Amino acid sequence: MKLLITGGAGFVGDRLARALLASGTLAGQTITRVVLADIAPPRPDLLNDPRVEARTGPLLTQTEALRDEPFDGVFHLASAVSGECEADFDLGLRSNIDSTRALLDAIRFNVIHGGKVPRLVFSSSVAVFGPDPAVPLPAVVTDTTLPAPQTSYGTHKLICEHLVADYTRKGYIDGRAARLMTVTVRPGKPNGAASSFFSGIIREPLAGLESVCPVDASVSHPVSSPTRTVEGLIAVFEASREAFNGRTALNLPGLNVRVSDMLDALAEVAGAAVRERVRFQRDSAIAGIVANWPSGASAARAGKLGLAPHTNFAEIIRQYIEDCAAGPNADAALKGLSK
Amino acid sequence: MKLLITGGAGFVGDRLARALLASGTLAGQTITRVVLADIAPPRPDLLNDPRVEARTGPLLTQTEALRDEPFDGVFHLASAVSGECEADFDLGLRSNIDSTRALLDAIRFNVIHGGKVPRLVFSSSVAVFGPDPAVPLPAVVTDTTLPAPQTSYGTHKLICEHLVADYTRKGYIDGRAARLMTVTVRPGKPNGAASSFFSGIIREPLAGLESVCPVDASVSHPVSSPTRTVEGLIAVFEASREAFNGRTALNLPGLNVRVSDMLDALAEVAGAAVRERVRFQRDSAIAGIVANWPSGASAARAGKLGLAPHTNFAEIIRQYIEDCAAGPNADAALKGLSK
Repeated sequence: MKLLITGGAGFVGDRLARALLASGTLAGQTITRVVLADIAPPRPDLLNDPRVEARTGPLLTQTEALRDEPFDGVFHLASAVSGECEADFDLGLRSNIDSTRALLDAIRFNVIHGGKVPRLVFSSSVAVFGPDPAVPLPAVVTDTTLPAPQTSYGTHKLICEHLVADYTRKGYIDGRAARLMTVTVRPGKPNGAASSFFSGIIREPLAGLESVCPVDASVSHPVSSPTRTVEGLIAVFEASREAFNGRTALNLPGLNVRVSDMLDALAEVAGAAVRERVRFQRDSAIAGIVANWPSGASAARAGKLGLAPHTNFAEIIRQYIEDCAAGPNADAALKGLSK
Repeated sequence: MKLLITGGAGFVGDRLARALLASGTLAGQTITRVVLADIAPPRPDLLNDPRVEARTGPLLTQTEALRDEPFDGVFHLASAVSGECEADFDLGLRSNIDSTRALLDAIRFNVIHGGKVPRLVFSSSVAVFGPDPAVPLPAVVTDTTLPAPQTSYGTHKLICEHLVADYTRKGYIDGRAARLMTVTVRPGKPNGAASSFFSGIIREPLAGLESVCPVDASVSHPVSSPTRTVEGLIAVFEASREAFNGRTALNLPGLNVRVSDMLDALAEVAGAAVRERVRFQRDSAIAGIVANWPSGASAARAGKLGLAPHTNFAEIIRQYIEDCAAGPNADAALKGLSK
């Protein structure tokens, strides 16, 4: 089968591609080709796999050509993140809404002209939820909580959920939208996402660096490890239409954790000295965005697909350390960790 | 104040324009200009009012020029209807999503370049609601029921609700989305809306014509008269930001009525012979669409703005008859009514 991963060079996309290539099959079919479409090139070692093809450039410039190219499956992960969308309204509209619409229309064109209807997983986000005076936000958002986005990013994700549902209803795609929880621990550098610190306060201390937490220690939020997130995307892809149950988006599992719990887990796994590298300095812009995010989430529908969250944050930290230890930058990434 | 009404030559737009012109003021300000933008020209008598200006053509072709023209208020009613969107997917996307986006972006451009932030009322629809396997539809949908649209039209309305909310959050408009119930009794001819029969089964018999009801008599639905609908749009415009309460859409009031109740009311108001002109012949396409619509709606937030539904359908029929009697086509419209 031939797969397209948009955002295929991103953090989740790269992980997803590696998981799919390692498995070799998806939904019982052999994977023969994985096209990674991204504004940035994939990590070079991925290109050693003859099944992998990179297409580098904005998705919007790639969709015209996609009209004539059938895919068996699509993972649509490409997106501008929350901080970017708040800083540049046009960029957000273009990267998130226009690009999704162009991708869906390219597929529709192909299907109308006789192509096979591809299965498509869209990565939505817990950021669709937020408080509104008319819609109080529950402590734990469920699959059926009324979304009231408080950022452009959350608005775009919600809009695309409904585009995916309607293109599915019309038979142009077999689409499923899955809401990712905040993925942590991300390697590398901080990015433009308001949620960036959810990785930074673990990653930087482990690398021996100071880290600033821009929100209070009492802030709670549903998070998921990269591995569980990728497992979730694959399970949603592999689910039958009936098992997915309807066309509305579902929540992927998350561990509902406070910042203080995260830091306690860091001390438990890596020692008190590592945890002490985190200091609190409130950033009102970030704290304001995060204050409008859910403090917890449940994922009943994902549970029926066999998906479950981690049960404690120490597991997530240990997974990150193992991943780093096996990677090319182990020394730098784990410089702060006493052996 | 200078107002723009998109869809200003349509059924609701025409009524709204006349109500505003008759009042002469809106939100305490004198109305000096009413621009009616519509694909069709307004009824000629409206143009006798020196405050009225017609701009005829697709909204998408008009938005570029709107970038340099500030308005104090906008009623955005222009829309392709449900039947049209199901028949022509591209038309629906263009007329409903692209046009709304272009309108909002024209206003945003004006505001960014120093223009005043206009108040904007967007006419959404009860069609945003529908049943999904994961989201059972309650018998009565409330302001906070989770929308799960089952038509492209409902999808587009929901998407635009969230665009309006996000442009409002960013300060580009002072936007409010109000969900119209099915408006009946509409004069004139059947249109492409799946809900067209909700007017036809009253309008045609009163005109002495046979009418076919394409759904069962037990079908229930929230409806509103044209007058109450226009009152609702004006009240939502005039509400303070605080009184509107948040940025999520609200339901306008509707009378929850069964088709059989409508026909009983017709017999009560116009006599048994008129009611006998309606026969039932199921149209599975229309019945299928309508089966996915709510059987009732509540409107708690609108109630706090002083808005209420009619209490019985006979009132709505009597209003239609009075309107027809005062209009230019009274003889034809009421030909079936024994004097």
